[in-house]
Amino acid sequence: MTSSFGNLFRLTTFGESHGRAVGVVVDGCPPRLPLTVDEVQHDLDRRRPGQSRLVTQRKESDTVEVLSGLYDGATTGTPLAMVVTNADQRPGAYDHLKDLYRPSHADFTYAAKYGHRDHRGGGRASARETIGRVAAGAVARKLLTVGPDGGQAPVSVVGWVSQVRDITANVEPETVTEADVEVDPTRCPDPQAAAAMTTAIEDARKAGDSLGGIVTVVARGVPAGLGEPVFDKLDADLAKAMLSLPAAKGFEIGSGFAGTTMTGLEHNDPFEPGPDAHHPITTTNYSGGVQGGIANGASIVCRVAFKPTATISSEQKTVTTSGEPTMLAAKGRHDPCVLPRAVPLVESMMLLVLADHWLRQQALDVLGR
Amino acid sequence: MTSSFGNLFRLTTFGESHGRAVGVVVDGCPPRLPLTVDEVQHDLDRRRPGQSRLVTQRKESDTVEVLSGLYDGATTGTPLAMVVTNADQRPGAYDHLKDLYRPSHADFTYAAKYGHRDHRGGGRASARETIGRVAAGAVARKLLTVGPDGGQAPVSVVGWVSQVRDITANVEPETVTEADVEVDPTRCPDPQAAAAMTTAIEDARKAGDSLGGIVTVVARGVPAGLGEPVFDKLDADLAKAMLSLPAAKGFEIGSGFAGTTMTGLEHNDPFEPGPDAHHPITTTNYSGGVQGGIANGASIVCRVAFKPTATISSEQKTVTTSGEPTMLAAKGRHDPCVLPRAVPLVESMMLLVLADHWLRQQALDVLGR
Amino acid sequence: MTSSFGNLFRLTTFGESHGRAVGVVVDGCPPRLPLTVDEVQHDLDRRRPGQSRLVTQRKESDTVEVLSGLYDGATTGTPLAMVVTNADQRPGAYDHLKDLYRPSHADFTYAAKYGHRDHRGGGRASARETIGRVAAGAVARKLLTVGPDGGQAPVSVVGWVSQVRDITANVEPETVTEADVEVDPTRCPDPQAAAAMTTAIEDARKAGDSLGGIVTVVARGVPAGLGEPVFDKLDADLAKAMLSLPAAKGFEIGSGFAGTTMTGLEHNDPFEPGPDAHHPITTTNYSGGVQGGIANGASIVCRVAFKPTATISSEQKTVTTSGEPTMLAAKGRHDPCVLPRAVPLVESMMLLVLADHWLRQQALDVLGR
Amino acid sequence: MTSSFGNLFRLTTFGESHGRAVGVVVDGCPPRLPLTVDEVQHDLDRRRPGQSRLVTQRKESDTVEVLSGLYDGATTGTPLAMVVTNADQRPGAYDHLKDLYRPSHADFTYAAKYGHRDHRGGGRASARETIGRVAAGAVARKLLTVGPDGGQAPVSVVGWVSQVRDITANVEPETVTEADVEVDPTRCPDPQAAAAMTTAIEDARKAGDSLGGIVTVVARGVPAGLGEPVFDKLDADLAKAMLSLPAAKGFEIGSGFAGTTMTGLEHNDPFEPGPDAHHPITTTNYSGGVQGGIANGASIVCRVAFKPTATISSEQKTVTTSGEPTMLAAKGRHDPCVLPRAVPLVESMMLLVLADHWLRQQALDVLGR
Repeated sequence: MTSSFGNLFRLTTFGESHGRAVGVVVDGCPPRLPLTVDEVQHDLDRRRPGQSRLVTQRKESDTVEVLSGLYDGATTGTPLAMVVTNADQRPGAYDHLKDLYRPSHADFTYAAKYGHRDHRGGGRASARETIGRVAAGAVARKLLTVGPDGGQAPVSVVGWVSQVRDITANVEPETVTEADVEVDPTRCPDPQAAAAMTTAIEDARKAGDSLGGIVTVVARGVPAGLGEPVFDKLDADLAKAMLSLPAAKGFEIGSGFAGTTMTGLEHNDPFEPGPDAHHPITTTNYSGGVQGGIANGASIVCRVAFKPTATISSEQKTVTTSGEPTMLAAKGRHDPCVLPRAVPLVESMMLLVLADHWLRQQALDVLGR
Repeated sequence: MTSSFGNLFRLTTFGESHGRAVGVVVDGCPPRLPLTVDEVQHDLDRRRPGQSRLVTQRKESDTVEVLSGLYDGATTGTPLAMVVTNADQRPGAYDHLKDLYRPSHADFTYAAKYGHRDHRGGGRASARETIGRVAAGAVARKLLTVGPDGGQAPVSVVGWVSQVRDITANVEPETVTEADVEVDPTRCPDPQAAAAMTTAIEDARKAGDSLGGIVTVVARGVPAGLGEPVFDKLDADLAKAMLSLPAAKGFEIGSGFAGTTMTGLEHNDPFEPGPDAHHPITTTNYSGGVQGGIANGASIVCRVAFKPTATISSEQKTVTTSGEPTMLAAKGRHDPCVLPRAVPLVESMMLLVLADHWLRQQALDVLGR
Repeated sequence: MTSSFGNLFRLTTFGESHGRAVGVVVDGCPPRLPLTVDEVQHDLDRRRPGQSRLVTQRKESDTVEVLSGLYDGATTGTPLAMVVTNADQRPGAYDHLKDLYRPSHADFTYAAKYGHRDHRGGGRASARETIGRVAAGAVARKLLTVGPDGGQAPVSVVGWVSQVRDITANVEPETVTEADVEVDPTRCPDPQAAAAMTTAIEDARKAGDSLGGIVTVVARGVPAGLGEPVFDKLDADLAKAMLSLPAAKGFEIGSGFAGTTMTGLEHNDPFEPGPDAHHPITTTNYSGGVQGGIANGASIVCRVAFKPTATISSEQKTVTTSGEPTMLAAKGRHDPCVLPRAVPLVESMMLLVLADHWLRQQALDVLGR
Repeated sequence: MTSSFGNLFRLTTFGESHGRAVGVVVDGCPPRLPLTVDEVQHDLDRRRPGQSRLVTQRKESDTVEVLSGLYDGATTGTPLAMVVTNADQRPGAYDHLKDLYRPSHADFTYAAKYGHRDHRGGGRASARETIGRVAAGAVARKLLTVGPDGGQAPVSVVGWVSQVRDITANVEPETVTEADVEVDPTRCPDPQAAAAMTTAIEDARKAGDSLGGIVTVVARGVPAGLGEPVFDKLDADLAKAMLSLPAAKGFEIGSGFAGTTMTGLEHNDPFEPGPDAHHPITTTNYSGGVQGGIANGASIVCRVAFKPTATISSEQKTVTTSGEPTMLAAKGRHDPCVLPRAVPLVESMMLLVLADHWLRQQALDVLGR
């Protein structure tokens, strides 16, 4: 079950970095959702390697093939199987890693867990696993655009790079669009910050080093009531979703860690009358759109911390698989900074969580609203 | 399923703040675990209200009754049902809240979700729901103490208040003990910080205000290999566990958000030879004990951000349930700062996640190690 | 998870025969369902011991207490915890069974599984575990009566004893009612068969022996479309539900085993025009209301085979827990034939499966019908 | 989740009859299991069409491709994705079925459920879906052969056709082998019965009609203790597994329906001393190897009833999708009797249930035996 996510809108991913293919099966997608392969490909293209000098140069078109679940331009309600064949496999490129553990990678922990390891490009721990998430996320995006109001008030999810190293961006969550984000290869919609980030990433790459940062994501139009109390709180499920991404080390919603230094009087979001009696609004949004685990109708705003890429070409101390000290200078292609490519991943996880909770709420509303 | 947590070591909580009782059913606890009711009560006593002036004065002994699953001093392998009767119910004390929404509480979101709300003391959204988690956590603690090595290398989990407002504590995660933490009612084992926190909390209470802060938790002795790749990463499950706690707004592991400003060369944890060939150790622990979602044998260190308590006695703007603006000054008993009582909750969630992953690993090891 | 059942309408039972209490937590019940404790008690009264000479004489009022989830006469959407205290515990009555295994009971298999056994009255393997199922089933019954059409076309579920030993009843599934079934303590609505069954059961009791038989159950008014293809077929979930009952050894739907001797031409249910274009009807019902795992709108008719009660007072060969041959003549109170009390159990399992699938269908219909 | 099965050894199938491919993802298979593609292909070859005149003549080699999870001749512990490309697609052959509902097929119920139907060859309701089950079952078979005792006491699962129409076979469950079963295309190891079945099936085919029957399956060597009490009883999970197969209408274990006419004294399986004090044996096996939901160490024997194939070439009354009466004489290729090809399916479901419960037991044994 480790490779499955979601309760009603449920995906299962499979595939290794240098195996034949990676992919996903989405079970529980409602029938009669209009969907084209191009809509899925669009998000995969935002994730794929080789888009710019800022990211890994592995050559993959990441062309998706839909094996099932789609008929006559719409979903059938049966499992959507989507597969991407690995094209630019270079398993031999990893031979020098076979007998040692890369620092802060999953090499040692996989060996400790399984006692049998596909060392080629990280195997299952590779970021290529996230292809399935993005493909599934694209389906969730379409679902959320059509519903909950038949498309009249679509849910929109937009992510962006809000920080690289100590360079922070100034972005307005209520209005930023995917188009704004896609202007620059950094996926930072603040041009000044984007320029500084570009320089910093290129410098790191030249130095054989790597950088981390933060992706911020907003979901606008989420209806009040989505989410669950207790364990499956909307923010709890988002936290899990985000921390399941490679290199993620932190999650916060609304005021997050900064909110810990405020007082209750400062932090509470006052209600005031909204469009109708059933939809009061808040004049601030320190809650980040979620109260008691349930959406309150305000924008959901989260931030995800990514550590600097573990794979660097500088020399590092490590040990061999038989426990001897050794030195490593990683070869092969890698991202000097995962942030730009992390944006579609973070969006996908947000979309998957929202789609799942929307279906769950639908079931709970069986006696009407 | 929203009130259930865990895959193999699985709990289901129930109960409202001012209903008859709150409790938990733990399904999947292995048989033949020696366990006494006192061991469960010990952790509940750390959670219960009225322990000091720093917390709510609701009078509850929180005496647990074990209805099933325990026989002859040991677990039977069948469900452990544990119940705490609500003694100090004062549902009438909440009449003034029936027709309005408390800011930054779950009042409005529950109404939006369910259309039918038990307003008495927050109903299901009350912190009394966490009694079941702590009772289950005590069972998990005992399980992890006996195993994985028959008690030779027990897993120990210790949490403490590391920050209140902007007052931060200086604590050594590798050596701090529960006894150190229990010395002061703040549950901050740094005496200077504890004194400052006490003053700050008392001042907030007198001012009709409230404070937030951070709980840090460490798990020592977790064997390398625990955790899962992809979605059920150990840190992902911890993130969900912690964000499911009332008032939690952020989670980080290891370097967390601070790690985003480091470079890969600084952040990678170098391996060096350990006690034997299969157990290399790292000379730093920016990973926080988890790499690729799987424990690497180092201490697991997490931090959880809690917002200031939403219930305050100062006057606030809000709306009635029919959408009219109004003012609220909350009466009733509440915690001016949830941090001291949050410590056993955070420990419980860590324990529950570890117990579950330990059982999962056991299943995967079916062909031997 | 072994003590939980259902995906969206989900119950978790707990409790042993001679422990303090037995009960159930129902999570996922929709909010705003009008429900009284009496409605739950009604079904429990049909299950409880001591109703007639035909069943065990254990004295239990089986009075249910609802600990949570009910407020102001309706469900809140949060977990319903329902508990029955064990009154007539006589653990000492089982001392003679402590060191041996009763034939065809769960004594040996529990010992093999857990290595630690509560031998008192079968512990968790006792039929008292089913109290939680019946309480949850009563909630499901109410839910299915109100919906799916707001009560205009309620789903009705009726079970009856259709066979005891070789005595078979003649009953019309399309019209039989609970009132018909409750006329006679055998719960067989065919008076002639009921009389013969009564004699047979009393003779078996006097002879220190026991009898088995068949319960038939019908669900009328189930809307076409309920159920899932592949693994969670409606009939597959019903099969699991029924085989999870104590003493059940077989399940069939529609033509069942008898249908294996028919040809396709005889067995296929011809369609003919129904009330409207979207609701064709079938002129026969060999399918038993389910085709391809999904309800077709016809009545769902299932049969469940129960073996003769394992506990008998006649002398039998067995072994001690240390493997020595011995003889056993069981003392204590038991049912000479479980069939009459099995009727509410079979109905409950049918109701629980239908409620769960109704909620699942609701989620799938998120884009409208 | 409808297309997933199992808790720890978990498969998810996908694919339609006339889509591009069908397949399965197996998540939770333990690492380091030696496995070849040929071992999977072996069981697929027993399932595939065109093996003899008794089955459908659709031309499919059903060659499996393993996309992930296998490295260096052994499983890695990560998801095994296995895919079979559909070769002999003839979607056009189903044009005459587009606007009508075939009697006793899933055509109408899919339309009622999804409102959007892939009519080509039954779409997802086709028996081609079972390819994924058989591939996963082959992995489970290998796992159960290696363990639980490292191969010293392998679990063996053998199924056979025990009845076609009213022709019954005489087969000894304790000794029958796969080799015995594979001698004859009917998969009935009783030569006389096999000959009569062959004639009956050929006659039915010529008459444009079809036949049903029974598959019996035995699992030998299952260790006592496997299975769970309450809902996930071993026989309950087997019942669900078997009823999830296309055309299955009934399930029984041990004495099953026949046992309902026995008395307790006749039906109870007396214990007598076994190989050691912890393994008593029973002198009869009316329990079918399961008592209280848990294996007792005796052979597990189940019978599954299959209705006659719904697709027949004789003329039948039915309705169009717009509710008008019409006549249908099905064209296309189909099995006049599913029984011979159902044998590997029944075995696979037994293997999948046993593998899952074995892993579950392993987790429960975390404190040792």
